[in-house]
Amino acid sequence: MQPRVIAVGVGPGDPELLTLKGARLIREADVVVTPVSDPKKSSIAQSIVKQLLDPVRQQLVTHVFPMKKDQSGLEEDWAASAREVAEYVLQGKTVAFITIGDPFLYSTFLYMYHQLQKLHPEIPVEIVSGVSSINTAAALAGLPLGLSDERLAILPATYEEGDLARTLEEFDTIVLMKVHRVFGRIRLLLEKLGLKDKAVYVRRVGLPGEAVFHDLDLVTEDDLNYLSMIIVKK
Amino acid sequence: MQPRVIAVGVGPGDPELLTLKGARLIREADVVVTPVSDPKKSSIAQSIVKQLLDPVRQQLVTHVFPMKKDQSGLEEDWAASAREVAEYVLQGKTVAFITIGDPFLYSTFLYMYHQLQKLHPEIPVEIVSGVSSINTAAALAGLPLGLSDERLAILPATYEEGDLARTLEEFDTIVLMKVHRVFGRIRLLLEKLGLKDKAVYVRRVGLPGEAVFHDLDLVTEDDLNYLSMIIVKK
Repeated sequence: MQPRVIAVGVGPGDPELLTLKGARLIREADVVVTPVSDPKKSSIAQSIVKQLLDPVRQQLVTHVFPMKKDQSGLEEDWAASAREVAEYVLQGKTVAFITIGDPFLYSTFLYMYHQLQKLHPEIPVEIVSGVSSINTAAALAGLPLGLSDERLAILPATYEEGDLARTLEEFDTIVLMKVHRVFGRIRLLLEKLGLKDKAVYVRRVGLPGEAVFHDLDLVTEDDLNYLSMIIVKK
Repeated sequence: MQPRVIAVGVGPGDPELLTLKGARLIREADVVVTPVSDPKKSSIAQSIVKQLLDPVRQQLVTHVFPMKKDQSGLEEDWAASAREVAEYVLQGKTVAFITIGDPFLYSTFLYMYHQLQKLHPEIPVEIVSGVSSINTAAALAGLPLGLSDERLAILPATYEEGDLARTLEEFDTIVLMKVHRVFGRIRLLLEKLGLKDKAVYVRRVGLPGEAVFHDLDLVTEDDLNYLSMIIVKK
């Protein structure tokens, strides 16, 4: 195989939602890099792919990146990680970089991609698309994201109320990401707009703790989680 | 297996972008239904899955549905198709319904789903998410759909100019679907908004005729296709 970085989107959590191509390229890679948010906790990405890995033949590397809203303070961490990945490729190796969901939609990989383009634009990067947790959340909630002429908006729930309200009014389907920190505020806004009955809260799709709440009033503090979203479907 | 309808999203075109779960469930199904747009042409969905099918053991069914903007005239066709699919399930069979991309995002399956819910709400429907062509198009174009706090809008390009302009101004990434009939108008609008240089036209992702145009001025009438989109990334 040509030495390169291969970003593999491994889907939302169920190891069976990995693509055939992703599974093959992870098996064939010389180096498999998995980002973890906390070195003491087991990595979600790692648990999805662990049955494909061969610790004897492959070099398995974990890089630690805290999951936090503001990744700007981590730029040097990402740069160091990109330099290490580039080094493997310059040694003639293929590096599979594991990322949950799809590499081009709110993924951890995009921080690595940015640094690779900046520091090593000569290194080939292949993107293997994956199933996004948004698609699987919609299926679990029973809410199609879009049909025929409908409009879909996907945005963080952390925007200010006026912006959110306008998007909620103008679009047919709205996916609010990162709701865990602003859940109470969003619930109130949806109530005010008469959309609370059309909203579903989906938590940890395809992972331990997966849950779907068709009634937002039943969601308690304990039900909130970083990997969660609200889908509003008119 | 429990008798049911299984909607399998088979990804944008590359047979290797099918999920492990989708491949397994297609192999295990008693009946495999593929929608085709024209009985004289070969079906895209069929070509993606053909290596998984066993014509001796499995019942392979094709249903014809013209690809057209307005599907409302086809309601009776979809109802008849849903009744046939329901009949298989009532006979104790598992039916895999093949759909390009993801079943819950602008898919053919959603018409079938609507009829099944209306006519046979008792029949279990399982959704197997797939890779959407939007994700793969973004990867091909080298344009991430969303990162950190960015906002993403996905909508048909057929909306009127005022609506499109507002969405193009307010969002960070905009995916315009169904551009083939209104391409000239959209190119003019993007030029007017100063966004033409930030737009990429992607045609037939993962299929014969796949192409990416980073310069919209190089797109001619012959390059336009039903399976195409413009991605605008600021």
